Amino acid sequence: MFKEKGIFVLNLVSSPGSGKTTLLERTLRDLSQKLRCAVIEGDQQTDNDARRIAATGVPVHQINTGAGCHLDAHMVMHGTAGFDLDHLDVLLIENVGNLVCPAAFDLGEHHKVAVLSVTEGEDKPLKYPQMFHNSTVMLLNKTDLLPHLDFDVEKCKEYARRVSPGIIIFEVSARSGEGMEAWYQWLSSAAAH
Amino acid sequence: MFKEKGIFVLNLVSSPGSGKTTLLERTLRDLSQKLRCAVIEGDQQTDNDARRIAATGVPVHQINTGAGCHLDAHMVMHGTAGFDLDHLDVLLIENVGNLVCPAAFDLGEHHKVAVLSVTEGEDKPLKYPQMFHNSTVMLLNKTDLLPHLDFDVEKCKEYARRVSPGIIIFEVSARSGEGMEAWYQWLSSAAAH
Repeated sequence: MFKEKGIFVLNLVSSPGSGKTTLLERTLRDLSQKLRCAVIEGDQQTDNDARRIAATGVPVHQINTGAGCHLDAHMVMHGTAGFDLDHLDVLLIENVGNLVCPAAFDLGEHHKVAVLSVTEGEDKPLKYPQMFHNSTVMLLNKTDLLPHLDFDVEKCKEYARRVSPGIIIFEVSARSGEGMEAWYQWLSSAAAH
Repeated sequence: MFKEKGIFVLNLVSSPGSGKTTLLERTLRDLSQKLRCAVIEGDQQTDNDARRIAATGVPVHQINTGAGCHLDAHMVMHGTAGFDLDHLDVLLIENVGNLVCPAAFDLGEHHKVAVLSVTEGEDKPLKYPQMFHNSTVMLLNKTDLLPHLDFDVEKCKEYARRVSPGIIIFEVSARSGEGMEAWYQWLSSAAAH
């Protein structure tokens, strides 16, 4: 359905608290004039994230999974019911914060984008290899905190490439905006193809 | 079996990268002279954590879950096979980093201890309520980073108490050691009863 309607779909996956929502807020503020975007938010409980996204003016739908640990394609199908799918360029899906289970579920996306906060430690791609193996892009987020951490960026990138040789890596701070331009260029270019 | 042998068992649960292993390393260095401890480490892949724990001199067993998103009691039973269970006071189980699925599995522990890094944002108890509801203790970790974050400690504690009114909260930095004494006192006292 997404293919038929020419909608470019990304499935954002990560641990809880990696900064996915802040990343989406900034991305939407910077890109939604050029690309018609919509967002699906997945969380066990609360509509906190949907309210944050709604403040950017972009259409958003919150899915609460209750006891569930991931989104699935059926939920996403229902989640898109309120969107004008004939006039949409990009759908961004923020999955439940979970570095394990969402790796196994295809939501109809073009790409999984793994967000890893530098506060989580550089070994995460090795410890949760399925997620990084299944992702096209890794966004290394919260780089503004690097001066206060023992985090080896090069080692982390090497670990990510060990489980996913072709993975595209951007170092970003969704808070400061540093490094976001390269991510926007990739997104815009991938959405155009 | 743990009850019969008088072994006090804690199940440490959290997001990936909350600092569980660093917290265990320091706890073992400070307490293992007084209490005979052993550790079970759960990860999808790698034995990184078991090697870090082994360096403290405490017996440790690594379980790799592969595609699995949590430990279960059967894995833990086999995981204890190499320990001298007749001469053990405390078993510390570090679960797979996942704020969702491990909430639903009883490993035979006396208490679940939820570790939340202040880098993850204060709303996590509301967004993943089952985990915090099922935990006796919340360790608010990485408090040394608070000066560099927008994190409201009081709001986080209020959210945790909203889903788990009796939850015991300790603010700690496993890196600097700040606040660890109160956690040790709770652990030692709970293990003695």
